Amino acid sequence: MTAASQKSTLIDNIGLLVTPGAERTGAAVVIEDGVIAWIGDSRSSVGSAPAADERIDAAGRCVIPGFVDTHSHLMFAGDRAGEFEARMAGQSYSAGGIRSTVTATRAASDSELLTNATRLVAEMRAQGTTTVEIKSGYGLTIGDESRALRLASTLTRETTYLGAHVVPVEFAGDVSGYVDLVTGAMLDACAPHARWIDVFCEDGAFDVDQARAILSAGIARGLGARMHSGQLGESGGVKLAVELGAAAVDHCTFLSDSDVDALASGNTVATLLPGVEFSTRQPYPDARRLLDSGVTVAIATDCNPGSSYTSSMPFCIAVAVRDMGMTPAEALHAATAGAAAALRRDDIGAIEPGKRADLVILDAPTYVHLAYRPGVPLVHRVLSSR
Amino acid sequence: MTAASQKSTLIDNIGLLVTPGAERTGAAVVIEDGVIAWIGDSRSSVGSAPAADERIDAAGRCVIPGFVDTHSHLMFAGDRAGEFEARMAGQSYSAGGIRSTVTATRAASDSELLTNATRLVAEMRAQGTTTVEIKSGYGLTIGDESRALRLASTLTRETTYLGAHVVPVEFAGDVSGYVDLVTGAMLDACAPHARWIDVFCEDGAFDVDQARAILSAGIARGLGARMHSGQLGESGGVKLAVELGAAAVDHCTFLSDSDVDALASGNTVATLLPGVEFSTRQPYPDARRLLDSGVTVAIATDCNPGSSYTSSMPFCIAVAVRDMGMTPAEALHAATAGAAAALRRDDIGAIEPGKRADLVILDAPTYVHLAYRPGVPLVHRVLSSR
Repeated sequence: MTAASQKSTLIDNIGLLVTPGAERTGAAVVIEDGVIAWIGDSRSSVGSAPAADERIDAAGRCVIPGFVDTHSHLMFAGDRAGEFEARMAGQSYSAGGIRSTVTATRAASDSELLTNATRLVAEMRAQGTTTVEIKSGYGLTIGDESRALRLASTLTRETTYLGAHVVPVEFAGDVSGYVDLVTGAMLDACAPHARWIDVFCEDGAFDVDQARAILSAGIARGLGARMHSGQLGESGGVKLAVELGAAAVDHCTFLSDSDVDALASGNTVATLLPGVEFSTRQPYPDARRLLDSGVTVAIATDCNPGSSYTSSMPFCIAVAVRDMGMTPAEALHAATAGAAAALRRDDIGAIEPGKRADLVILDAPTYVHLAYRPGVPLVHRVLSSR
Repeated sequence: MTAASQKSTLIDNIGLLVTPGAERTGAAVVIEDGVIAWIGDSRSSVGSAPAADERIDAAGRCVIPGFVDTHSHLMFAGDRAGEFEARMAGQSYSAGGIRSTVTATRAASDSELLTNATRLVAEMRAQGTTTVEIKSGYGLTIGDESRALRLASTLTRETTYLGAHVVPVEFAGDVSGYVDLVTGAMLDACAPHARWIDVFCEDGAFDVDQARAILSAGIARGLGARMHSGQLGESGGVKLAVELGAAAVDHCTFLSDSDVDALASGNTVATLLPGVEFSTRQPYPDARRLLDSGVTVAIATDCNPGSSYTSSMPFCIAVAVRDMGMTPAEALHAATAGAAAALRRDDIGAIEPGKRADLVILDAPTYVHLAYRPGVPLVHRVLSSR
């Protein structure tokens, strides 16, 4: 990780530079005070780049935008390796396993939670992720949810209140009572630490009416809306997300034609989570169908100890290309610019003047290697404006 | 990479130690002169470990044998990222693409070939591989094949002569003439640099009679036999491999019941190559069927620029668990002890006194994380006897 702020840096001799709408060869980039200031030809070719305090020789490598991981659940304790093994031996995935992480998370100290999340953020950055969204959702009490968000906000500005992750056991017979809590006192305690509100709208979690109440309450408090839906089956969640102007609806494995139409006509990004299907053996979502319909698509890890414990955006890109019908260029776009749209951010996700200088130098001549060389750590260096 | 030879090292405080037939908690290992000398309880628990020159605190991490990658094609030049992109867009894989790498490899200098292979071996070691087999097969002339093996032998003792990778274009109308070359003057030039001889026995490459002639010629020269077969369809290759006492037959995607019976009754390891099916969208081999029949199974990367450009054994383990019906323990065994059997080596692939001290300390409490956390670089430290 290189802190690029407060000085100028020339990245020279870039073999392939991915910029919006184009791929340049023999390029150079100048960063000033953590912002991309100039893009042009490599100094070694024409000598036109401005002077800079520091010069990084990319030596012909490919330079891409830092990955934007818009969906993670890093505020947890414990792991569920045993549940994973049982699933691989034939047990099916259900959202109920979330509750075992809730028990472990409630029992953990602030320090344990923050240490674990910090480790995972570092792991992500080493694999090229320069922006990460972090959700609560394993506390499910006023104190535990607000604590998770307070701690998460020390790691990222993209914090999401997910009190409506699953109904906790103590509300098993009183879902509406839990919705009242999530939209009332828990929201009051969490809103100061969150940018977003999210809900898991799926059989076994929250239905469409409950999801509408939850997101509407958050929106009324100034939070942006996001949603989990379409993971295990079709529901009305996707249309609700579009109707409410949610920034993104995540999973999108099971979509009706009218869901796709709604996404195409609205302003909500469809975020696909390849690690989930890989680690639960669920069917993969059809990215091709979405892209061909004009939907903006993002890719994220969904890093969490239950359904997808990968922190690797390169791995997710490889799976998206193999199993979701995306080209390598589309998958890279989804992991950067598409993901920035899913966070309603215009300062990240692309290499162009004025954007934050969040860049990854790959140990490869082209980003195609992210899919062509699955599982191989290809991140040579990460430059981040933070 | 730590050179562990010529001194003693205590690895203490091991959270989970994988030894043949058992998994120990709270363990310690002592290495002397590059060999495992002692296994017992962690010094922090009972203080029984012998004294050592150096102490490594594993801090509760899992320690596994170094991976043994028995199938790689590292002696090549160029890459085939464009072919990969075309395949992902719908073109099917065929062995013919090998010829484009042959052209690039013949044109490369010794230094270019060795630099590329050295880079890939280093990449493998960073991901926990401590033994790697390297094949020729992109030269297909006397000079180019013997050069590849001479260079490969500077990187590993597990070198494999694969003049019979594919029929080169200059012999397109004269396959038997090429077999004569492979079993004659080319063998003479290559045998001094090789431990093994291999043949691609498949439609589009070499048939069973040709494969028999090729392997028999190698065996007569003192080389061990290996085979590629069953990648694209059933052939008689698998039974031939068993009949000739080959150490391994690799791919094994398409197997008849009698092929499985032959493997179970013989001394030939079935080596599965998950990266190939991942990167070509071919059906995955059924490891469960093989294991349940009593066949010894290995996993390898098949690292090559065409069908599988991964160098990551952890990635291959994750895919084997997800898509081939192996448990995490079976996949780890296949990547270590099973793979050692596929090289007929009794000095590697397991952590027990007398074996070479090739060990990997994982950044995880259990090896299950290799499958549970796909794509995540989990190798904390590699100790190698070399």
